[in-house]
Amino acid sequence: MTANIEILSVGNELLIGKIPNTNAQWMAKRLTTLGLNVRRITTISDDIAEISNAVKEAITRQPAFLVTTGGLGPTFDDKTLEGIAKALNTSCEVNEEALRIVEEKYKTYAKERELEKIELTPARVKMAKIPKGAKPLPNTVGTAPGVTIKHDKTTIVALPGVPPEMKAIFEESLVPVLKKLAGDVTFFETSLGVSGLMESDLATIIDKVMHDNAYVYIKSHPRGQERTPHIELHLSTTAKDSTTAKNRVSRAIIQITDTIQAKGGKITRFKAKKQSNS
Amino acid sequence: MTANIEILSVGNELLIGKIPNTNAQWMAKRLTTLGLNVRRITTISDDIAEISNAVKEAITRQPAFLVTTGGLGPTFDDKTLEGIAKALNTSCEVNEEALRIVEEKYKTYAKERELEKIELTPARVKMAKIPKGAKPLPNTVGTAPGVTIKHDKTTIVALPGVPPEMKAIFEESLVPVLKKLAGDVTFFETSLGVSGLMESDLATIIDKVMHDNAYVYIKSHPRGQERTPHIELHLSTTAKDSTTAKNRVSRAIIQITDTIQAKGGKITRFKAKKQSNS
Repeated sequence: MTANIEILSVGNELLIGKIPNTNAQWMAKRLTTLGLNVRRITTISDDIAEISNAVKEAITRQPAFLVTTGGLGPTFDDKTLEGIAKALNTSCEVNEEALRIVEEKYKTYAKERELEKIELTPARVKMAKIPKGAKPLPNTVGTAPGVTIKHDKTTIVALPGVPPEMKAIFEESLVPVLKKLAGDVTFFETSLGVSGLMESDLATIIDKVMHDNAYVYIKSHPRGQERTPHIELHLSTTAKDSTTAKNRVSRAIIQITDTIQAKGGKITRFKAKKQSNS
Repeated sequence: MTANIEILSVGNELLIGKIPNTNAQWMAKRLTTLGLNVRRITTISDDIAEISNAVKEAITRQPAFLVTTGGLGPTFDDKTLEGIAKALNTSCEVNEEALRIVEEKYKTYAKERELEKIELTPARVKMAKIPKGAKPLPNTVGTAPGVTIKHDKTTIVALPGVPPEMKAIFEESLVPVLKKLAGDVTFFETSLGVSGLMESDLATIIDKVMHDNAYVYIKSHPRGQERTPHIELHLSTTAKDSTTAKNRVSRAIIQITDTIQAKGGKITRFKAKKQSNS
């Protein structure tokens, strides 16, 4: 039983389609590779009520982790921590450890700019205001610390939206904990290109092969049109060790390629790609 | 008061981070340009219970439209319509109009391939099985028709996940209705590059300018680090006509660039971009 994780992306820029949600994709891939199950990705606006509602809803589904991205910075529309606090019926206050982290950052920036000091304005202190009971996570790349707080069965982790900062805190503070949670599992995936059969022809073949190969998940992705079919078949599994994972997928590949060729289809491409728990 | 829309993306490939959610981004941008408000984007797996729960939750928020992408095809894991039916306490059945659409498609494909006929297998008929009370939307690019069904205050629209098919049905069947819903509104956005000021310095400037310019939304996106700051400022508004929208944003730009320069910041880039209701 793999642990469930939810991702909550906060940011108006995502809801107006200004940028693609590459943070969620990066994290989903990384979590899957670690052997965890990303159950839901939700994107909402920089609005305290929206954030609070989305956090409350996620908590009722009891994921092991709820990871948010975005909304930790110094500007008025960085509202993620207020939203989380509201969801947990608490409020934000200046956290001493977080304040020390932010202070140190501005001391360094002042030195780099050969200034005597950079004042700790309210906008800067804001980055140290976190929900009561939460802990800051060091940000080795940027300024605003990440934040973690446990509620019921869920550990909520708030990460910045700037990709290098999000990735740094994820790798440094989160991955060690996530590896323990996942245990010793491996995610293994391969993909095949198939031409000469329509996706509607492949449907029954996939059905049969998945039935015969428990634990192997096969999904077809049409790359051309049904009339000039070119299909990508994606096979994946999560197992206790990489030999088991590889064997499972290999058996499914042999069966599915045999059946496809017997029905007049062609295998146009084969890409094996192991992703281990690391 | 602009109408709320929710997007529901269905597909395991999104939750394992295999592909970025470009469908949601495209649609979010298109809806925003039409003058509508995308309130939430949710991504869930190819699982009937997950789809049904996500649809039920969305409906309670009463968006004008709930648009789903993915899961309409012929394979076993195309489960979106079953999930929608479950959420609405109904079931799927073969819809005569949808069946006619699918039949016509395979007649055309058979002709193109110089076959006497392509049999209507259960996998192919599956694409005509839609929730009771729903209507098919013609798919001029691919095979599976889109589907629409009204529930309470929300019109649910299910579109395929293959991008050219999704976009074709969106433009042909949805945009005319969405334009009426939005009325005569224009979305207008511009962005500025700012260097020489930290995001934490800009925070108070943005606050003041947004306070003085109701209806203009300003968001800062750090592009460098707080220590070597380069910030993108994104200004946007939705208004009844493009002159009003442009005037509003222009006034805000003048005030913000004046203040930034007075504080020692530099404007490095200016990109005006009008997006009208078309």
